[in-house]
Amino acid sequence: MSEINVIPPRSGTAFRLPRGSYLTVIDTEGEQVSDLVAFNALDNREAISSGRSLDYASKLQLSTDDLIYSNRSNVMLRIVKETFEIIYKDDHPHRGCFGNLEAALAPFGIGSDQIPVAFNCFMNVVIQPETSAFTVQPPTSRSGDFIRFRAEMDLIIGLTACSALQSNNFAFKPIGYRID
Amino acid sequence: MSEINVIPPRSGTAFRLPRGSYLTVIDTEGEQVSDLVAFNALDNREAISSGRSLDYASKLQLSTDDLIYSNRSNVMLRIVKETFEIIYKDDHPHRGCFGNLEAALAPFGIGSDQIPVAFNCFMNVVIQPETSAFTVQPPTSRSGDFIRFRAEMDLIIGLTACSALQSNNFAFKPIGYRID
Repeated sequence: MSEINVIPPRSGTAFRLPRGSYLTVIDTEGEQVSDLVAFNALDNREAISSGRSLDYASKLQLSTDDLIYSNRSNVMLRIVKETFEIIYKDDHPHRGCFGNLEAALAPFGIGSDQIPVAFNCFMNVVIQPETSAFTVQPPTSRSGDFIRFRAEMDLIIGLTACSALQSNNFAFKPIGYRID
Repeated sequence: MSEINVIPPRSGTAFRLPRGSYLTVIDTEGEQVSDLVAFNALDNREAISSGRSLDYASKLQLSTDDLIYSNRSNVMLRIVKETFEIIYKDDHPHRGCFGNLEAALAPFGIGSDQIPVAFNCFMNVVIQPETSAFTVQPPTSRSGDFIRFRAEMDLIIGLTACSALQSNNFAFKPIGYRID
């Protein structure tokens, strides 16, 4: 099994993920959110689209076997396994996460204006159906919980250990990831 | 009062909207959805962001006095009045709407990859809180219902009379708009 890479608390990274490979995002200590964005490695104007992904799935919560689409309606990632309930809330990369993604993606020629709405791994968003108001609650993920994705095209991935206080139950922890 | 422009059924348009002016989108016949996108007229890499707008408002349904933010967190539009309940669902410009926006925005130098998640005027989205599944129901808007926006920067607006069957209760009608 390949090694687990560690993203230190309140930071981010970016890397290539070839088509057919698997990315496992791991909440190593529990209650830690990770923001994920993805770009076509051959044309970074193509990026993940929360709008299309949620619309095609007809739900706000994506889970095992669901697909993450690009702004050109191509499948970029497939969720092959997840050990808990996740929400792909329509959220932007949060405060510090945006700057961390910006710095990590710059060497790939991806500018800040291109950073799309992120896929929020392990984020716990509760929606009040009457008012549509939502709140970000402490994550329910525990140490070792993970989401495993399959790359459906050659990708550049941006990934963070989220630095929003409320999203992480007011403690900042690392995020692990593995590529195989 | 300025004239009402008409967007014919299943089509779209684009136009400049100077800062400080008002745009009123009118459902002239009732039960007709309109997709709205907006770009900074001076730098079209800046566009409306559903993620930021919903996150800053902490709700999925925007209404009077709510703000629509850009991907740079600047206020682009302010909702100054709306005559019914609206939802800014995290939806992409739907099927035919995307092509209509693409054609309307091309003369402004805006390419298809730049078209963001749209603001869905008059769309009626019902979310099941238990499963997060959502369905698009017939609009509840009636003839003459409107949403009035104030431009908070110089904008290019793309606007459609939506051509998704289910979003419009299986009938295609025009959309009116007025600038003052």
